[in-house]
Amino acid sequence: MDRRTRTGSPSVRDVGRRVVVIGGDAAGGSAASQAKKRRPDLDVVMFERGRATSYSACGIPYWISDAVDSEADLVARTPEQHRAMGIDVRMRTEVVGIDLDRRVVHWRDLEDGGSGVEPFDDLVYATGSVPMRPPVPGIDATGVHGVQTLDDGAALRAALESGDVRRVVVVGGGYIGLEIAEACRIRGLEVTVVDMSATPVGTFDPDVGEFIADAVRKEDIELVLSDAVAAIETDAGGRARAVVTASGRELPADLVVLGLGVRPAVRLAEEAGIPLGTSGGIAVDTGMRTRVEGVWAAGDCVESVHRLSGQRVVVALGTHANKQGRVAGINIGGGYATFPGVIGTAITRICELEAARTGLSTAEAEAAGYQFVTAVVDSTTKAGYFPGAQPIRLKMIAERRSGRLLGAQVVGREAAAKRIDALAICIWNEMGVDEILSLDLSYAPPFSPVWDPVLIAARKAFEAVEADVRQL
Amino acid sequence: MDRRTRTGSPSVRDVGRRVVVIGGDAAGGSAASQAKKRRPDLDVVMFERGRATSYSACGIPYWISDAVDSEADLVARTPEQHRAMGIDVRMRTEVVGIDLDRRVVHWRDLEDGGSGVEPFDDLVYATGSVPMRPPVPGIDATGVHGVQTLDDGAALRAALESGDVRRVVVVGGGYIGLEIAEACRIRGLEVTVVDMSATPVGTFDPDVGEFIADAVRKEDIELVLSDAVAAIETDAGGRARAVVTASGRELPADLVVLGLGVRPAVRLAEEAGIPLGTSGGIAVDTGMRTRVEGVWAAGDCVESVHRLSGQRVVVALGTHANKQGRVAGINIGGGYATFPGVIGTAITRICELEAARTGLSTAEAEAAGYQFVTAVVDSTTKAGYFPGAQPIRLKMIAERRSGRLLGAQVVGREAAAKRIDALAICIWNEMGVDEILSLDLSYAPPFSPVWDPVLIAARKAFEAVEADVRQL
Repeated sequence: MDRRTRTGSPSVRDVGRRVVVIGGDAAGGSAASQAKKRRPDLDVVMFERGRATSYSACGIPYWISDAVDSEADLVARTPEQHRAMGIDVRMRTEVVGIDLDRRVVHWRDLEDGGSGVEPFDDLVYATGSVPMRPPVPGIDATGVHGVQTLDDGAALRAALESGDVRRVVVVGGGYIGLEIAEACRIRGLEVTVVDMSATPVGTFDPDVGEFIADAVRKEDIELVLSDAVAAIETDAGGRARAVVTASGRELPADLVVLGLGVRPAVRLAEEAGIPLGTSGGIAVDTGMRTRVEGVWAAGDCVESVHRLSGQRVVVALGTHANKQGRVAGINIGGGYATFPGVIGTAITRICELEAARTGLSTAEAEAAGYQFVTAVVDSTTKAGYFPGAQPIRLKMIAERRSGRLLGAQVVGREAAAKRIDALAICIWNEMGVDEILSLDLSYAPPFSPVWDPVLIAARKAFEAVEADVRQL
Repeated sequence: MDRRTRTGSPSVRDVGRRVVVIGGDAAGGSAASQAKKRRPDLDVVMFERGRATSYSACGIPYWISDAVDSEADLVARTPEQHRAMGIDVRMRTEVVGIDLDRRVVHWRDLEDGGSGVEPFDDLVYATGSVPMRPPVPGIDATGVHGVQTLDDGAALRAALESGDVRRVVVVGGGYIGLEIAEACRIRGLEVTVVDMSATPVGTFDPDVGEFIADAVRKEDIELVLSDAVAAIETDAGGRARAVVTASGRELPADLVVLGLGVRPAVRLAEEAGIPLGTSGGIAVDTGMRTRVEGVWAAGDCVESVHRLSGQRVVVALGTHANKQGRVAGINIGGGYATFPGVIGTAITRICELEAARTGLSTAEAEAAGYQFVTAVVDSTTKAGYFPGAQPIRLKMIAERRSGRLLGAQVVGREAAAKRIDALAICIWNEMGVDEILSLDLSYAPPFSPVWDPVLIAARKAFEAVEADVRQL
C-alpha cells in the first residue's frame, strides 16, 4: 500500500476501507468523527470499554462537588450521536488483542462475555492512560479510588454518597489531587492531601506553589508535604482504614483517592509490537502515525515533542487528545494535518485561587540544560485603584544571554490565570523578554494596570538578563 | 554633537547637560524618570500646565461614576514624587514656544502670569492630545465638556455634582464616550449617545458592535446611531440646552460631553519647525527621536508604525505613552531601547459587557489592501457544563491564501475580553490560523471548553481559508 492510499488520498476510492478505533473518549472520538466526516464511505468502528464516549474527565471533580449536576453534562458526544454520524460504536466492549499480521483486533463484550474479531485497514490506538498505583501494601484495597474515567468518577461519587465516608486522604497533590480534595471538602468531609513535593502541584516553582499551599490550607484541607504513601492499612474486611506515610505518619481514612497522575495505557500496543518511544508513550510522527503502517495513535497514550526541551514527553490532557485525534482523523480521511508538539501549558483553580504555567519550570529548565534568570512580580488584575483589583503574581524564566522566554507561571484570583495563554504564545514563538515588553497588549483600568503584569515581568526579566550579561 | 554624545553614551560626562520635558503625564513623566534614573547627573526639568503629573486619564470615567474614590487615586506619581527623584517639576507652567536655534523653551506660569526661558540640550515633546471639537455652532458653549485631562475630569465632576444636570448627551460612542455615558447613568442621569457609526465603537465590526449596542441599551442609555452632531443650541446665557443632529433630531441636554476622540497636540511643534508625519502626529524614529537633533517626542502627540498596515498612525493610549516615554528616557540616558510599533489592540468594559480588539477590523483590512476571510464563533468562557459559563463571541479576520491572522475581536462577559492579548501576540508574530489552532493553550473546565474559543475560531477561520483557496 503506498502512502497515497495509506493517507487516503481523495483520488483513491475507499469503499469498504475499514477504520477501527480503540477507545471512544476525546482522542478516539475525534479521530473517528473527523475521518468519517471527510470520507463518509469509510467504515468506522469504535470500541469503548466504558459506559460513555467523548466525555470530560477534567470535569469529574466538579461533578463530585455537585457544581455540575449530572454525569450527562460531562458528555460532549454520546454513543447515539456518534452513531448518527455513521460510526459503528461498540460500547462496553474491550479490545483485548491486536494482530498486526492478520490486521484484526480481538474484542470482548464486557456485558455478555461474548467475543470476536474485527478486521481493519487503519487502526487508531486511543486507549488513554491508567492512574499511577504505587506498589505499596494495601494499594488494591476496597475504598482506594482512581479518578481517571467517568466510571471511576461514578464509583467515587457512589462511595461518597453512601454516608460511610467522613475522612478522605488524597494521595498526590497535583491538579487532579487538589481538585478532588476541594470537591470532597465542599461535601463537608475531612480531607488530607499527601504529596512528595515541598509545595503542592510540584510542576510549579515553590515561590508560586506556596500560594497554592496557602489557598488549600485556608479551606481546612490538611497538607502533608515532602512525604509519600508507604502503605494503606486495611481493616479485617480488606477495606482501607488509614494511609501510612514514609515518614511514619498514620492518616486515618475512610476513603483513599489516588491523584498521582497517570501513565500511558500501552499494554496492548506492547503486546502487539507497536513501538513505544523513549518516554514510554506510543511513538508517533507529526501526523500521529505510529511506526507500524496503517496504525495511528492519539491522546494520553502517545508521546509528544516538548518544543523547549526537545525531549519526547507524555502529557495527558484533554486539549491535546482532542487535537491529536483530529489530526489522525484528518490524515486518515485523506487530508493533511500535524500536531506540532507541546510546551507544557496547564491551568487549575484551587479553592478560589487560579494558577497556571507554561513552558519549563526552573527545575525543568535545569534538567533540559538551560541556564536562565528569573523575575517575579506582584501586581494586580486591574488598575491598582480600580474596585475589585486582585493581587496577581507572575514569574518568568528567561534564558541567559538570549533573553528567550523559557517558562512562565501565574497565580492569583479572578481573571488571573487565563492570562497564561499570552505567555504560552510568546514561548511558542520563541520571543525574548525584550520584545515581550514592547508588545501591544490590551489596557483599560478594569483589566490591568497601564503596565500590564506581563509587561512588568518582562521588563524585570529583561533587566535581569542585562545584569547577568554584564557579568558574563 | 555626535551621536555618542547625543544618545548620552555613558563614557561621556554629562555634568550640566540639561533635558527639558514638555508635559508631565505618562510619556513625559516616564521619559524624565528613566533619563534621570540612568544618568543622575542630568539636569531634568519637566513642565506641566495642569495640576497633576503621571495620572491615569483612562480612569476618569470611573472617578466620575464614584467607582474610584478620589482624584488622588488616579495619580501614579505626584510632582513631589518626581522631585524626590531629582526632577525639577514646574507645575501649572505652560511652554508657549520652542526656539530650536537658541535651544530654549519659553514658558508662562499659569498661576502668577510670570514667564521665562529655559535652555535645553535635549528636549522631550510630550504634549499629549486635544479632544476633537467638531466645528459646529455652539461647540464652545458653557456646559460642553471634554474628558481629556484630569482637570477636565474635575470640571465635569463639579458640573455633575452641582445638581443642575439631569440630561446628558455624549457626542461620540467610542470607548471614552460609552464609558462616560455609563458613568453618568450610574449617577442616575438620563443619557443619550450620538455616534456616526451604525453600531457604537466603530472600530469594531458591526457583528461585534451589535452586542455592545445591546448592552448599552439594557442600561437605559439611548443610542442615536448613524447620525452626527450638527449644532449645540444654547440658552440666553450661552449655556448648552440641546444637541441638534444632522438628521434633525433635537436632544435636550443640560450637559454635553465630547467623546469624539482626540488629535495630537502638535501646535507648538509645528510653530517651532519640528516635522510632523503623514498622519499628523510628530514623526519619530524607533528610538523616539524627531527629525530635529536632540529633540525627542513620545505619547499621544506622536505617530507610530502600524505593523499590519505599514502606515503611520496616531494611537492615543496610556500604555503606548508609557512605553514610548520609557524608550525616549532610556536613549537620552545613554541606553538603547526601541518602540517597535502598534497593532491596534484595545479593550473596554461597557455596562458589564467586555469587548476587545486587535489588529485590523474588516474595514481597516480592506483599506490596507488586504483580502481576507472571516470566522465568527459563539462559545463560552468556561466549559459549557460549568457553573457560571458565559457566552463569548470571537471574530477572526485571516488573509486569503496565507491564512495569516490580520485581526480579532472578542466580546462577552466576565473574563472574556482580556483573552485578546493571546490573539494580539499571534498577530504580532504573524501567525497563520492553521498554526494557531495547534497552540498549546491552557485548558481546565473553570477557564474554557476543551477547545478554547481561540482554537475554535482558528479552526473555523482555517476552514474558510481552505474553502477560499479551492475557489482561487
